[in-house]
Amino acid sequence: MRKLSMDELNRKTIAEFIDAKKFPISVILENIRSAYNVGSVFRTADSFLIESMIITGYTATPPHKEIKKTALGAEDSVQWKYMKDTSEAIGFFRAQNYRVFAVEQASESLSLEQFNFGENEKISFIFGNEVSGVDEKTISLCDGCIEIPQFGVKHSLNVSVAAGIVLWQAVSSYILKLSANKI
Amino acid sequence: MRKLSMDELNRKTIAEFIDAKKFPISVILENIRSAYNVGSVFRTADSFLIESMIITGYTATPPHKEIKKTALGAEDSVQWKYMKDTSEAIGFFRAQNYRVFAVEQASESLSLEQFNFGENEKISFIFGNEVSGVDEKTISLCDGCIEIPQFGVKHSLNVSVAAGIVLWQAVSSYILKLSANKI
Repeated sequence: MRKLSMDELNRKTIAEFIDAKKFPISVILENIRSAYNVGSVFRTADSFLIESMIITGYTATPPHKEIKKTALGAEDSVQWKYMKDTSEAIGFFRAQNYRVFAVEQASESLSLEQFNFGENEKISFIFGNEVSGVDEKTISLCDGCIEIPQFGVKHSLNVSVAAGIVLWQAVSSYILKLSANKI
Repeated sequence: MRKLSMDELNRKTIAEFIDAKKFPISVILENIRSAYNVGSVFRTADSFLIESMIITGYTATPPHKEIKKTALGAEDSVQWKYMKDTSEAIGFFRAQNYRVFAVEQASESLSLEQFNFGENEKISFIFGNEVSGVDEKTISLCDGCIEIPQFGVKHSLNVSVAAGIVLWQAVSSYILKLSANKI
């Protein structure tokens, strides 16, 4: 085994990224306090070829020094918009036939390992504030909650780590269905 | 749907965490530059009830102000040791019948969505430096490389996000096998 060189990674140019067919997955970031976390989600969204991202509430938007520091340029490849109200973002994705899920520890939530892509499904995931989570009002507008099961003393993950985990679950579910010709 | 209260989360005390049966998963952190990343991996390792963590090379160890800031107390629940050489950490886990995998973009790597727990399997994952990745020498000592497939302009994830993704894949594979009575 040997590490791949930069040339072997087949990295896309920004133009190629924008043109590429994306995974049918989008993200809403609601009232995220740390711009570093926003940048880190951009970086993950780029890696996983996510369709688009909507930034809501008081979440910082590019151009922003701290976002740039953790996004490492992914704020230029990933398509994003700002909308003040999360309800507007939910409406925007619903109009494109996305189902919308809040990522939250909630009653009647679906445990993440049970999440699988359905045929022709498009999913939008909402990640909320680092301390208070997704707003109750936002949750009431969603198709459901998805929960990352947790077993420790904290029951709390960094929001950019949680986004990485949920986006990976969705992308990997999609890849497995694609490779089994089920999509 | 409503968010769960703190009381409903069934969070363990540190004593309960230490006594709890863990997932048969361990972590090696090799030459991680940012102590914030180390703290974030502690937080994830706590959430996912990881067996233990070995910190190697110049990676910062607790007690450390920046680790504390992102670990939020998880540095007191997760069992960890420091060893200078990663080879020693690999030997330590091998002696306990762990298979050891580097998380790296490498030739002949296993793509993460293909990773599943085998019966009675114990796995240790090595995460390397933010810029240069896992050392080539370390890779040569491993049972293999596991790669998070990436599709964007960067082909690079934050190391604490990568650790969250890989640990989730392992934990969720274990949970699914447990629930199907295959473990």
